[in-house]
Amino acid sequence: MDQQALQELIDSLPDGVVVTAADTVEKYRFDRSQDSGAGTPAAVVRAEDAGQVQTAVRWAARHRVPVVPRGAGSGLSGGSSAVDGGLVLSLERMRAVQIDTDCQVAVVEPGAFNAEVKAAAAEHDLWYPPDPSSYEICSIGGNIATNAGGLCCVKYGVTTDYVLGLDVVLADGTLVTLGGKRIKDVAGLPLMKLFVGSEGTLGIVTRAILRLVPAQSARSTMVASFASVDAAARAVVAVRRTMRPSMLELMDHASINAVEDYRSMGLDRSTGALLVAQSDAPGVARTDEVELMRTACEVAGATEVFVTDDPDEGEMFVEARRIAIPAIETQGALMLEDVGAPVPVLPDLLAAIADVASSYDVPIPVIAHAGDGNTHPIVVFDPTDAESEKRALEAFREVMQRAIDLGGTITGEHGVGRTKKELLPTQLGPEVMELTRRVKAALDPDGILNPGAVL
Amino acid sequence: MDQQALQELIDSLPDGVVVTAADTVEKYRFDRSQDSGAGTPAAVVRAEDAGQVQTAVRWAARHRVPVVPRGAGSGLSGGSSAVDGGLVLSLERMRAVQIDTDCQVAVVEPGAFNAEVKAAAAEHDLWYPPDPSSYEICSIGGNIATNAGGLCCVKYGVTTDYVLGLDVVLADGTLVTLGGKRIKDVAGLPLMKLFVGSEGTLGIVTRAILRLVPAQSARSTMVASFASVDAAARAVVAVRRTMRPSMLELMDHASINAVEDYRSMGLDRSTGALLVAQSDAPGVARTDEVELMRTACEVAGATEVFVTDDPDEGEMFVEARRIAIPAIETQGALMLEDVGAPVPVLPDLLAAIADVASSYDVPIPVIAHAGDGNTHPIVVFDPTDAESEKRALEAFREVMQRAIDLGGTITGEHGVGRTKKELLPTQLGPEVMELTRRVKAALDPDGILNPGAVL
Repeated sequence: MDQQALQELIDSLPDGVVVTAADTVEKYRFDRSQDSGAGTPAAVVRAEDAGQVQTAVRWAARHRVPVVPRGAGSGLSGGSSAVDGGLVLSLERMRAVQIDTDCQVAVVEPGAFNAEVKAAAAEHDLWYPPDPSSYEICSIGGNIATNAGGLCCVKYGVTTDYVLGLDVVLADGTLVTLGGKRIKDVAGLPLMKLFVGSEGTLGIVTRAILRLVPAQSARSTMVASFASVDAAARAVVAVRRTMRPSMLELMDHASINAVEDYRSMGLDRSTGALLVAQSDAPGVARTDEVELMRTACEVAGATEVFVTDDPDEGEMFVEARRIAIPAIETQGALMLEDVGAPVPVLPDLLAAIADVASSYDVPIPVIAHAGDGNTHPIVVFDPTDAESEKRALEAFREVMQRAIDLGGTITGEHGVGRTKKELLPTQLGPEVMELTRRVKAALDPDGILNPGAVL
Repeated sequence: MDQQALQELIDSLPDGVVVTAADTVEKYRFDRSQDSGAGTPAAVVRAEDAGQVQTAVRWAARHRVPVVPRGAGSGLSGGSSAVDGGLVLSLERMRAVQIDTDCQVAVVEPGAFNAEVKAAAAEHDLWYPPDPSSYEICSIGGNIATNAGGLCCVKYGVTTDYVLGLDVVLADGTLVTLGGKRIKDVAGLPLMKLFVGSEGTLGIVTRAILRLVPAQSARSTMVASFASVDAAARAVVAVRRTMRPSMLELMDHASINAVEDYRSMGLDRSTGALLVAQSDAPGVARTDEVELMRTACEVAGATEVFVTDDPDEGEMFVEARRIAIPAIETQGALMLEDVGAPVPVLPDLLAAIADVASSYDVPIPVIAHAGDGNTHPIVVFDPTDAESEKRALEAFREVMQRAIDLGGTITGEHGVGRTKKELLPTQLGPEVMELTRRVKAALDPDGILNPGAVL
């Protein structure tokens, strides 16, 4: 990059906002996907407010420099992999969280962690439901960029369902305010929703107004063991046919054992598959819901069903599910899948994943937000063995292809980023891709916002 | 219009699909807003399937003919007012509703009534929550076009929260399928959401996949009387600060009396304002919620609070609220407002409306989805008196201006259509209007889709 242009950027922002030191810049190259295609940026802008984001984007627009927005760097699809010679625009310093109890909303800067928003809301007996497994280390900005899901989404919906307002810096540096604290507002085109899930390719969110709901009721937890993933998946279909639990997660044999290797949680290592389900229905309805789930699991051939109303005991099983990814990370390098399908297709999708693992001779432990048909097959490989990595990459692609063949999606909640974009046209088809390009061109004609992501 | 071109359209579609007879065409000029600016279309296409919609739009694109999509004609903002010499594309014949119980979704054609979707879902103990007051006579296509709300939205959200998939015919006749039966899917830009609330200006929905939820629990109804609208509005703010009822509606003195004139419902004509609220929390939680509401109302100065668990008795009060618009329609011609504000601002918004009524010397009865800050001030005028109509129009505009001044919106659920578009730039500002025009131009470069609506 032109050194004079870079100096112009440095001079236009307060000391310390623009970082060019190689050792610091290095830390902003990768997100958690460790995308091998990540480049080396010319500089990192650690913006402190929306005005600084505008300054940086205006500069980038003038000099046609790529801008990769970045929250906490916990992304799993390379959505914030740096681009050679570009800017990384980090929102990590913009972390204010303000709760408006009268409006029951949180006004949040993008760098705030999901857990911080939950904690601030909880002080007022309010709740921000979306709960990615990584909620303690992922930012709201990243959640909005990917339209993140989580464990409770089976009942409570995903991030977009909670976004009432956004401030967005567009590709030319213009700041627009969309929506607000109004619960219902249909004035004008629904532009706000266009940014939720756009992975930083259309604009950079600098503030969000998030809807809060009353604190979640007490939960009961059901843990059901099955001899096989297929039996567990059939139980999921049966449960979802009759009710809507507040959580319905699946762990297969390999992920159970990975968790036990990583931290002993008392799970039975011989179990074929585990369902961890919760009901948060108030009062006796909770008992009814748990009994419905128990019956469905028993009919589907559960070998054991355990129910607890004790919140700590329940949380232990949920925690076992949440730490599956870090646990599996100790076994090798990972390619994290996020394929989904309509719920009734879940057994077929899981069978297809097992078939791919066997065909390509790679371990693919599976955890799943089973209640909404969203699975995380995790392709494990040895990063020092090129042959192992090649097979893993082929398996990673094949899993996506199988999901598409089954009427599913290549990504339920992580986003397309850079690691999944190859299969996106196969899923969406040429007409939707053309529409996508038209919208992208209308909002970012020079293609400076997160180039290489999604498209 | 060129008669040869029109004949080409007639010949390309089955007999009876294209209508040009003046007396039939006349019936498709207006929606329920009776927008005086509505034109006379050259023809009406009553499409029977998506292919016929494509044929008509391709023809319109070739000949640069405006296309106004139309559902049941129950719109309240002139969103489907016909355009002189254009096509009205009616979806009234496309009414299939299919329930997929395994996926808990409804697959619906746009002409199906909201009530028909609810009824089909109810046969399987499922529920489609969005419930405009006009649910018995409004179409799902129109609901999607306006991102319609209703009475239960205060707890259950609006139309966009339930749309999982859409088939859309674009301005060049291309059919795109967006989303599907997958509960979570973030593959690609969130284009689907861009069409929900776009009022037919970006594409024409030919099929929707709608999320269903378990049937609603039994409800308790609370009816609270107040000496003034202000006291009732303050009670609403207090209720919303502590809980989220499944319904929280307001009727002012004038609308109570209009309802009693229209059909005796046993409402007390001397009441200053009425709140009709419901809780559908399961079990004892329902009693707790109703008591919370009762206490909030009493503290806010309610003169009487009545509670019933009897569903029929409760439904009677809800029905009284629902028939307010037809009741007021008997008193003169109407200009229907739909202004909203953040909930804590509701008392100020209602005071501003009363001030406008007094300043312009026009009756403005008010009903409101008070729990989400969305009000329907109804400006009544004598259509045979030009002076009365002029004052009504001024008052209609002034109410929108006051809502904007209070940080509110000109439309919470009816849409901008043609009757509210004059104030849209004031609410959104030049940057958002520019963004709106860019998106519109990207999707409909020749401006053939619903020209004159929104923009």
